[in-house]
Amino acid sequence: MAENHSLELLIQALRRLPGVGVKSAQRMAFHLLQHDREGASQLARALDHATASVRHCNLCHTFTEDDICPTCRDPRRDRSQLCVVETPADQAAMERTGAYKGLFFVLMGKLSPLDDVGPRDIGLQKLFDRINAPAAPDDTPVREVILATNFTAEGETTAHVIAQALKGRSDVQVTRLARGVPVGSELEYVDLGTIAHALVDRR
Amino acid sequence: MAENHSLELLIQALRRLPGVGVKSAQRMAFHLLQHDREGASQLARALDHATASVRHCNLCHTFTEDDICPTCRDPRRDRSQLCVVETPADQAAMERTGAYKGLFFVLMGKLSPLDDVGPRDIGLQKLFDRINAPAAPDDTPVREVILATNFTAEGETTAHVIAQALKGRSDVQVTRLARGVPVGSELEYVDLGTIAHALVDRR
Repeated sequence: MAENHSLELLIQALRRLPGVGVKSAQRMAFHLLQHDREGASQLARALDHATASVRHCNLCHTFTEDDICPTCRDPRRDRSQLCVVETPADQAAMERTGAYKGLFFVLMGKLSPLDDVGPRDIGLQKLFDRINAPAAPDDTPVREVILATNFTAEGETTAHVIAQALKGRSDVQVTRLARGVPVGSELEYVDLGTIAHALVDRR
Repeated sequence: MAENHSLELLIQALRRLPGVGVKSAQRMAFHLLQHDREGASQLARALDHATASVRHCNLCHTFTEDDICPTCRDPRRDRSQLCVVETPADQAAMERTGAYKGLFFVLMGKLSPLDDVGPRDIGLQKLFDRINAPAAPDDTPVREVILATNFTAEGETTAHVIAQALKGRSDVQVTRLARGVPVGSELEYVDLGTIAHALVDRR
């Protein structure tokens, strides 16, 4: 095995994927070489193509192949609402609900002092610039910022910092996704913090 | 997201890896594009290189970049012993023990009727050819075949089929790795089948 240089390099390269250890990388490499060489070539092409063409939208910071992503370009969307999410996956989850018709801003991360991730690393300034200046001179200004970061310690911190920075601005309303009991769940099995929040935010 | 073609293609390609579902593929793609584009390029190069250069050893069927793998070429190995394993990972495990100095034959699979994997799919005929004909005219013939397939239902079946096919050959001895209690384990926590085998095979 040790002498098999290109197999070793492949296993090492696969280990750089998040959540993949030595054993998984080995299994993936063996699987590709034994059963799916076409899949291996396809993955190589997809990686090359994506690294060459995928960049960040100038407005919302999400992954796109254009200067401005299709969502930000879409004239049917409500340009006065800006939903702040942590990742493109979170944005996709919001989109799948079909309940939101405004624009997005994707932080591409969250504040995490323990991991040494500060406001600069997740481009908070870019968010404030986006809120302060409309995309085009005739563009609708942002009137509501909906904080949809995750309900984890880091996500809450990120939401708090953004809310603090926008405090005192009468032209921009800052809201947060409601905390409460998940749809379809039984109270008996919901954690106490969630029930307490649902009680406070009752309507 | 749907409009982001090369990102979608990358996620689809990553899903072909064993054990990777939609969410993992998404997380891998986002990680590579956001934090490790160099890793993505490295993986693409490693995949291309491996698919182009890795093939099977003519003698033992394992992955190698040469006609004959370094293990089969090694003059210090005992050429009269042939250890039959399912995968290169199993071969690597045997090698790490340092207790085996013979040659290998890697099946690259196991008999699995439920998954429609028969004797032809795992190249059993190649194994029998290897046992019948020495690699070179002056090569030592195989005198012992050590069955080191896994101790699972499929591995046991595979071992049984090979043993049956070599039955009645007085020139080749067929052995199987010993079943027994793992080193360092306490009897109380070992499963009953293992203890029963250890009792029968006591020495």
